[in-house]
Amino acid sequence: MKNTFKSPLKGIIPPLVTPLLDNDTLDKDGLERLIEHTIAGGVNGLFILGTTGEFASLSYSLRIELIERTCFLVRHRVPVLVGITDSAFSESVNLARVASDSGADAVVLAPPYYYSSGQPELLEYLKRIMTRMPLPLFIYNMPVHTKVIFEPATVSTAADIEGIVGMKDSSANLSYFNQVRYLLRDRTDFTFMVGPEELTAEFVLMGGHGGVNGGANMFPKLYVDLYKASVNRDFEKIVPLQNTIMKISTSIYNVGHYGSSYLKGLKCALSLMGICSDFMAEPFRKFKDRERQKIQQLLEEFNYSEWI
Amino acid sequence: MKNTFKSPLKGIIPPLVTPLLDNDTLDKDGLERLIEHTIAGGVNGLFILGTTGEFASLSYSLRIELIERTCFLVRHRVPVLVGITDSAFSESVNLARVASDSGADAVVLAPPYYYSSGQPELLEYLKRIMTRMPLPLFIYNMPVHTKVIFEPATVSTAADIEGIVGMKDSSANLSYFNQVRYLLRDRTDFTFMVGPEELTAEFVLMGGHGGVNGGANMFPKLYVDLYKASVNRDFEKIVPLQNTIMKISTSIYNVGHYGSSYLKGLKCALSLMGICSDFMAEPFRKFKDRERQKIQQLLEEFNYSEWI
Amino acid sequence: MKNTFKSPLKGIIPPLVTPLLDNDTLDKDGLERLIEHTIAGGVNGLFILGTTGEFASLSYSLRIELIERTCFLVRHRVPVLVGITDSAFSESVNLARVASDSGADAVVLAPPYYYSSGQPELLEYLKRIMTRMPLPLFIYNMPVHTKVIFEPATVSTAADIEGIVGMKDSSANLSYFNQVRYLLRDRTDFTFMVGPEELTAEFVLMGGHGGVNGGANMFPKLYVDLYKASVNRDFEKIVPLQNTIMKISTSIYNVGHYGSSYLKGLKCALSLMGICSDFMAEPFRKFKDRERQKIQQLLEEFNYSEWI
Amino acid sequence: MKNTFKSPLKGIIPPLVTPLLDNDTLDKDGLERLIEHTIAGGVNGLFILGTTGEFASLSYSLRIELIERTCFLVRHRVPVLVGITDSAFSESVNLARVASDSGADAVVLAPPYYYSSGQPELLEYLKRIMTRMPLPLFIYNMPVHTKVIFEPATVSTAADIEGIVGMKDSSANLSYFNQVRYLLRDRTDFTFMVGPEELTAEFVLMGGHGGVNGGANMFPKLYVDLYKASVNRDFEKIVPLQNTIMKISTSIYNVGHYGSSYLKGLKCALSLMGICSDFMAEPFRKFKDRERQKIQQLLEEFNYSEWI
Repeated sequence: MKNTFKSPLKGIIPPLVTPLLDNDTLDKDGLERLIEHTIAGGVNGLFILGTTGEFASLSYSLRIELIERTCFLVRHRVPVLVGITDSAFSESVNLARVASDSGADAVVLAPPYYYSSGQPELLEYLKRIMTRMPLPLFIYNMPVHTKVIFEPATVSTAADIEGIVGMKDSSANLSYFNQVRYLLRDRTDFTFMVGPEELTAEFVLMGGHGGVNGGANMFPKLYVDLYKASVNRDFEKIVPLQNTIMKISTSIYNVGHYGSSYLKGLKCALSLMGICSDFMAEPFRKFKDRERQKIQQLLEEFNYSEWI
Repeated sequence: MKNTFKSPLKGIIPPLVTPLLDNDTLDKDGLERLIEHTIAGGVNGLFILGTTGEFASLSYSLRIELIERTCFLVRHRVPVLVGITDSAFSESVNLARVASDSGADAVVLAPPYYYSSGQPELLEYLKRIMTRMPLPLFIYNMPVHTKVIFEPATVSTAADIEGIVGMKDSSANLSYFNQVRYLLRDRTDFTFMVGPEELTAEFVLMGGHGGVNGGANMFPKLYVDLYKASVNRDFEKIVPLQNTIMKISTSIYNVGHYGSSYLKGLKCALSLMGICSDFMAEPFRKFKDRERQKIQQLLEEFNYSEWI
Repeated sequence: MKNTFKSPLKGIIPPLVTPLLDNDTLDKDGLERLIEHTIAGGVNGLFILGTTGEFASLSYSLRIELIERTCFLVRHRVPVLVGITDSAFSESVNLARVASDSGADAVVLAPPYYYSSGQPELLEYLKRIMTRMPLPLFIYNMPVHTKVIFEPATVSTAADIEGIVGMKDSSANLSYFNQVRYLLRDRTDFTFMVGPEELTAEFVLMGGHGGVNGGANMFPKLYVDLYKASVNRDFEKIVPLQNTIMKISTSIYNVGHYGSSYLKGLKCALSLMGICSDFMAEPFRKFKDRERQKIQQLLEEFNYSEWI
Repeated sequence: MKNTFKSPLKGIIPPLVTPLLDNDTLDKDGLERLIEHTIAGGVNGLFILGTTGEFASLSYSLRIELIERTCFLVRHRVPVLVGITDSAFSESVNLARVASDSGADAVVLAPPYYYSSGQPELLEYLKRIMTRMPLPLFIYNMPVHTKVIFEPATVSTAADIEGIVGMKDSSANLSYFNQVRYLLRDRTDFTFMVGPEELTAEFVLMGGHGGVNGGANMFPKLYVDLYKASVNRDFEKIVPLQNTIMKISTSIYNVGHYGSSYLKGLKCALSLMGICSDFMAEPFRKFKDRERQKIQQLLEEFNYSEWI
């Protein structure tokens, strides 16, 4: 297995939205613009087919097309991480092979999400899938959607499996993730990434390696700046950047109802910014005019030209 | 759309286990034996790719092979219902087309199970997928695995969508399902099926149409007899049959740990009965020797020759 | 310990609402009317300080007053069961003593509901509290509110503790309760009562002993008739009665929002029927005019004079 | 209302365990030693009758005794905060009055925890209870136990109610709490305290006011030092202190099973340190010999004389 992660991956890795023209058609131009937009903003990698990327709603042929095209467009300028989470083991393995063949750098895996596994089952699952992985793998903790947590002791054991090189935690539970990090404190090569952008600053200040932050689709430089300020413990810079990120969190992600308001707000903003289509895969729908106008107003308040 | 459900489907519809030789290989002989075994036992239909069928753990090529081979083997002796639940809309549509092309009679659909939908989103999802369905569809309520319930008012509205002909409820919440049934009391053509076999008797006694009961993989005649006795309100027969079913529920399904003990016990028993392999798809594992011996003992206690 | 439950308690046991004038004042006249109303309707016992009785919202002095006054008013015409569920062991013991001193017949206990217990802790808790109980005790399964289920194996073991004489299950999961009943099938003295009125008919048809049904506060005779018809397996009578109960369930209990709509609808109807005040203890509020008018309309549709 | 919180409360506020001799008897000597131990360690206040204090398991007379005795022993050397959370409004009001009469400085309130409230109900509840509060009140977010979260918009509105002066969040979800803090960014007088000690450093670094950290019962100076280092952004000091706190979190709190292992480990350690009894109120039990020896070993590894 090729392992380019001898030392931790660091910085901001946007979990890319998947630009779509309709439920089965990639917005190829939008994807290209999004990739150029985020790389230009200084991000340290790209993560496709995560929760923000609507992976679970996409057909396999679309997922494969997205992997291939993203790797082609990125041209190794930054590492590409590919989500291979699936309820079916074999489809995860297939996606990993596609990722490897396309030149991606790593894969990212959450637990199977229909049947709930016990912790020993989860550990066995990781062991068995790692025998089939052509790329290094990041564990992906996402209990809201998978119903299952990787308990700290499970991660601690799993980290010894050849090829498991890091973890992304989207639980927002920093007490939990600090426990995981403490148990793996001697693994200086292991990458720890946090999902929710509202706590990237705290996480990086205390030694975390970076953030897989959805907002970096819109404003990559903003999150990169926050990351850098946090690494440098430069509170003069951190405080206003963090305030901006909290304003985004409590406004753009907070229009409309249901758990999908984050994703709808993000895609709507990207559409208004001229980056990509805001079409959403089933079972979600893009914002209608009223919500779109609200997002437009919020964007105008931000005057964001410096963050991109 | 071909609709063979002008009146409700009735009786016992086993949710077939998927016999497997390994994670990607169908146990074809086992499948044939299982189909013949259940049809010989008098079941009124077969449901493949349900929760008991480990649908979410199977690759798409395996799901397609299973649909085609099952329809081929059944030869229209009983209706075949095909689970098309998926987190990706397009894959559900693809599976429905395969089911239709293979000669299946209906499809069965639970909510997308990674992202959680609100009720209006769920209703919209049903409306949109029905425009693509070549076969009648049964709504499948399975909140333990999908995290989302079809609220009674949602089902009541959805039942007006062309092509939605029935519902299977696996919540085990009979208070809930009675509410759904009451709201649809004027829909004499609509099928109501209950999942958990522990309450099939009660459900049928009060007008429910039947059970999609996992135990009918093992002992089809037992469940068919219970169904018939319940339709006939023949309590002399119901009581001992129900006791047997509760004995199965509290013994064969109750060996080992975790939520998967039902499925592991069922497949293990089928293997011991010589019907099919007990291999389980990831992330589960079949029982080891100790548990297998326990299931063997339990089967010997049952002396089940009359129930098959 | 006085044990009047050598054989199972049977029939309809209304979980009485607690009539209140304000948050700390019992509606004494309303309580008397409610007791007379339900006893006149033929109920087989009364259960105070259950979930329907808003027990957890009442001060201890009010709970004590309610116990004493109810026992005084009932004058042993029917058994009085007293809920003693509390997060504090000692307060449960105190309430049990008050119940015994007041002449009640049994107590009813759900798990402590702030800290969640594991099953062994729950069993130990039952063992220890039973050493302090002056009255027979019914186990009360109410997982929506307590977060903890009594697993079937736990009930099965607990049933051997001296003084535990029955169980009320409000989970609505008949698969679960049938497992419990099967495990205790040799305990012909043990009482099984079901909470949700939507499944009382099924439950009694299959040997359950009765229902602790909230609707019997309003229409005691309706539920008593359903119980009798179910015991007699008289489907001619069961079907229309069940339909009426489902109409209540899907209308009167379904006005307004939040989990409290059942309780608000019930108290509002009792107020409109002239039985007792609809004041609700904190943190709930009685219906405002709009909802009250809706309940009024629904009551008028019912023409319920025969059910009381 | 006396309000001593014109500016935020800051620092470490241990949520005191409740030393008990048996289920109904306060360990008075232990309480005195615990108070002197924590004050000597430099804590900035004491919080009694929180989750760590087993409030929900204590009888009312014991809660009252604890309030009075604590206030008497503290003699206003540090502020005393009193938990008044209860499922019954009137009992919360009673406890607040006792707290006020005893000379406490503030009360702390989580949502009623048997019936779940909707957000508007929760806001109404706060409004109404505040009309009865003789002391300033801290909102207490503890969703694991109460099943209900105070949504950020609810806190934001509630903060305008006269007398609500701060919030303690024990959700461990820093993404959530950062949203709350952002919405209240103009309220420079409002106190924000975090519960889980594993994230106190991050929280204080980014402007949070302190921690209500259980470990400060054992090692008050350790947590006070971490707080001070965090206020001073002195990472040289923060890092080793944080490592120690994570070692405690992953060892002393991680012996035995169930959610209660934190509390059992904490009380066991206090007993081994000679501070107070490790008796636990129902439904929990103190550690048996095997676990106690494990805690003893862990304590010996810590060599903690400098942290107290």
